[in-house]
Amino acid sequence: MSNLSHFDEAGRSRMVDVGDKGETKRVAVAKGEVKVKAKTLDLITAEEIEKGDVLEVARVAGIMGVKKTSDLIPMCHPLLINGVDVKFNIFKEEARIEIIATAKTTGKTGVEMEALTAVSTAGLTIYDMCKAVDKEIEIGEIKLLKKTGGKSGTYLADE
Amino acid sequence: MSNLSHFDEAGRSRMVDVGDKGETKRVAVAKGEVKVKAKTLDLITAEEIEKGDVLEVARVAGIMGVKKTSDLIPMCHPLLINGVDVKFNIFKEEARIEIIATAKTTGKTGVEMEALTAVSTAGLTIYDMCKAVDKEIEIGEIKLLKKTGGKSGTYLADE
Amino acid sequence: MSNLSHFDEAGRSRMVDVGDKGETKRVAVAKGEVKVKAKTLDLITAEEIEKGDVLEVARVAGIMGVKKTSDLIPMCHPLLINGVDVKFNIFKEEARIEIIATAKTTGKTGVEMEALTAVSTAGLTIYDMCKAVDKEIEIGEIKLLKKTGGKSGTYLADE
Amino acid sequence: MSNLSHFDEAGRSRMVDVGDKGETKRVAVAKGEVKVKAKTLDLITAEEIEKGDVLEVARVAGIMGVKKTSDLIPMCHPLLINGVDVKFNIFKEEARIEIIATAKTTGKTGVEMEALTAVSTAGLTIYDMCKAVDKEIEIGEIKLLKKTGGKSGTYLADE
Amino acid sequence: MSNLSHFDEAGRSRMVDVGDKGETKRVAVAKGEVKVKAKTLDLITAEEIEKGDVLEVARVAGIMGVKKTSDLIPMCHPLLINGVDVKFNIFKEEARIEIIATAKTTGKTGVEMEALTAVSTAGLTIYDMCKAVDKEIEIGEIKLLKKTGGKSGTYLADE
Amino acid sequence: MSNLSHFDEAGRSRMVDVGDKGETKRVAVAKGEVKVKAKTLDLITAEEIEKGDVLEVARVAGIMGVKKTSDLIPMCHPLLINGVDVKFNIFKEEARIEIIATAKTTGKTGVEMEALTAVSTAGLTIYDMCKAVDKEIEIGEIKLLKKTGGKSGTYLADE
Repeated sequence: MSNLSHFDEAGRSRMVDVGDKGETKRVAVAKGEVKVKAKTLDLITAEEIEKGDVLEVARVAGIMGVKKTSDLIPMCHPLLINGVDVKFNIFKEEARIEIIATAKTTGKTGVEMEALTAVSTAGLTIYDMCKAVDKEIEIGEIKLLKKTGGKSGTYLADE
Repeated sequence: MSNLSHFDEAGRSRMVDVGDKGETKRVAVAKGEVKVKAKTLDLITAEEIEKGDVLEVARVAGIMGVKKTSDLIPMCHPLLINGVDVKFNIFKEEARIEIIATAKTTGKTGVEMEALTAVSTAGLTIYDMCKAVDKEIEIGEIKLLKKTGGKSGTYLADE
Repeated sequence: MSNLSHFDEAGRSRMVDVGDKGETKRVAVAKGEVKVKAKTLDLITAEEIEKGDVLEVARVAGIMGVKKTSDLIPMCHPLLINGVDVKFNIFKEEARIEIIATAKTTGKTGVEMEALTAVSTAGLTIYDMCKAVDKEIEIGEIKLLKKTGGKSGTYLADE
Repeated sequence: MSNLSHFDEAGRSRMVDVGDKGETKRVAVAKGEVKVKAKTLDLITAEEIEKGDVLEVARVAGIMGVKKTSDLIPMCHPLLINGVDVKFNIFKEEARIEIIATAKTTGKTGVEMEALTAVSTAGLTIYDMCKAVDKEIEIGEIKLLKKTGGKSGTYLADE
Repeated sequence: MSNLSHFDEAGRSRMVDVGDKGETKRVAVAKGEVKVKAKTLDLITAEEIEKGDVLEVARVAGIMGVKKTSDLIPMCHPLLINGVDVKFNIFKEEARIEIIATAKTTGKTGVEMEALTAVSTAGLTIYDMCKAVDKEIEIGEIKLLKKTGGKSGTYLADE
Repeated sequence: MSNLSHFDEAGRSRMVDVGDKGETKRVAVAKGEVKVKAKTLDLITAEEIEKGDVLEVARVAGIMGVKKTSDLIPMCHPLLINGVDVKFNIFKEEARIEIIATAKTTGKTGVEMEALTAVSTAGLTIYDMCKAVDKEIEIGEIKLLKKTGGKSGTYLADE
């Protein structure tokens, strides 16, 4: 029967040994979205025109979040990150901001958690900067879009 | 016109000065959920019966995440946390785990970001521990349920 | 004779006990500058016109650096920061960027190290983002401009 | 035209992808200086004779600062550090302390930011330990002296 | 019956709510010891005479460790530290180094964990710096000597 | 004569250069123990039967502590950890808990400090969660049991 690998035969949590896995180039793309009020999105996009920029601060936070992933998530392996980018797509009518984060590494384990942490941290940062004007913000649909590299090969989410 | 307070008159981002705000007792409750496959939820709940426990590891991660909030979110003020708890409700038929985090402080600013970071970190930890058996996990509906204390008073989400 | 307070009578380093000091509102303003090639400054200011912005990334880094001050500097007391801002003045003819950081707290010790760490971190971030095109960048003249609050009262640098 | 590589074609900040760069041995040497009052330098050098030692605390801080570099600087890649040393040269007549830091790695990107962060952190630590007796301390002339390894080869500052 | 307060009625771990506790001045003194080979202790004490100093590096590590306590220990509350000192007593005949750490705060919870973390971190640092010449080092007898402040009053270990 | 390698010829502390060492698979096993009152051990083991679990929280803390090792210990090299596990053996009559931690890496330096930090952090976490009911807890006998990999080969403690 399939079991969760983060536990040993006695049910004890552990950081799985990846010592026998080869180092391969790995990429993961994750997404998420932040749903705000229409008025809040207007403020965010208005700021964008000027120098100050909610999304640029959120982008920096997302990129830095990648480097904190293994510190935040107990069983997650530390990785040397090759590169990160975080993009935002604005859906005006639906008053939501889509966050797409790509993380890359050359290593023994996948880089999904890093991409997902970038999305989550960028989302929390948008929330923080807008919460004074909008208490109903919702962060959601955080999931993996794509994963390449490693023994399990390429994964592509249905969408 | 209402403006985002994390930017000054010239549009520069800043950490807002809260020096004139009083110290009050503050509580925030946030929620989120993790949607998994039915089979994954079976594994999580089966583990729970034994000693190893996905949700207990996620709980510890969520509580520790609270203490990293101001390190993760650029404009977020550091706070002395009075207490945290993180609970999980399992909805078997819908194959989802609801995460409810409560954070408390006595301070000059609200503790919403801490509660939301607990939810997000616990969710990412569940994801990490189950990703080997389920690549379609989705973390979502992260939002504030309740907030008390401070000048703006009590906020209760419609639900 | 005056002695360095971070050492005890036997010459051992220590974190000085500030338990008997009162909590007062404190502000510190520090400055520093980054000297670059004229061509590098052109690139920085050109970027500024578009969305990407070296100085905005450096500003975020400087603000976040404030929150890491007591983790970086061994004998430095942790403080609850009330607010931070980081500004840049561009001197085109001299090809230098002046960084001015203001940090505020209500606490038992001064907030100079936080303002200075903001300046230093913002300067290093500008360096990092421009080093591919300019290897001769110099960060300098990091010093305290002003300090208010606490028993020793107001300090103003000659300038 | 030359562009800043930390931004993509749309001007968005990013952590540059170094996945195709080879791992080579890399060394960077950086310098900086701390200008103090003559009396302050006397105290520092007097302490040095006894067990307590401003410069030894600053050296430890500088070495530890190297390990925090990618956490401080947003677009900086994490690196596995092979070795660090931090030295101080005292110029008594000019009342200044020169800081020389050497950082070494085997990796895909250069180790300049690490050497510069060591210098900056050591400088801030000297400042912190002497600020009670000298409010006019200035940290300056932080720059790269030498860099070897990697595709761009050896760089030597004019001096 | 007495229960462990870090668990709620359902057995879930939590960070206990200290919101109703008053802020008082608190001091904790902890000890520990490092047992080494006689030859190792000779090297440590010989170094001490010169500028380099195992114990001074360990002291700095212990003081910095205090500031990382709530990041290391899951249910531990963050505290604003008022002061720390770390002392070493050398017992030559028994080839052991006693570590005594004192931590002080004004806060809602005790500062024992901080004093104990200082001792433990200083001990690990001595271990690290001597492990190349001595693989049988043992760190032990880490315990609380004294605790004052707070509702439970003064505690003094028998010794 | 043998010298402490963490100091250069002038007695200055440094992070030793390991650039010429090869990357090999390395394992370290460390142990330690926590001595508690019989009544405290009863509470710990009683909790274990239910969902909440002192030892599971301590295990998570120990695993996460591994990833903070080079941040805690000044001269310690950062390492990419391949895997960690932390086990507890309960000696009921002697009222003590033995902690055994295993850390694995593929790297240029040994992983002893990581295994020892896991033991120490797990021990401090047990202390923290039980200190309200037992002020006489003692953490001790922290030492290396086994070490494999690297140029110096296998080490096995006498026991």
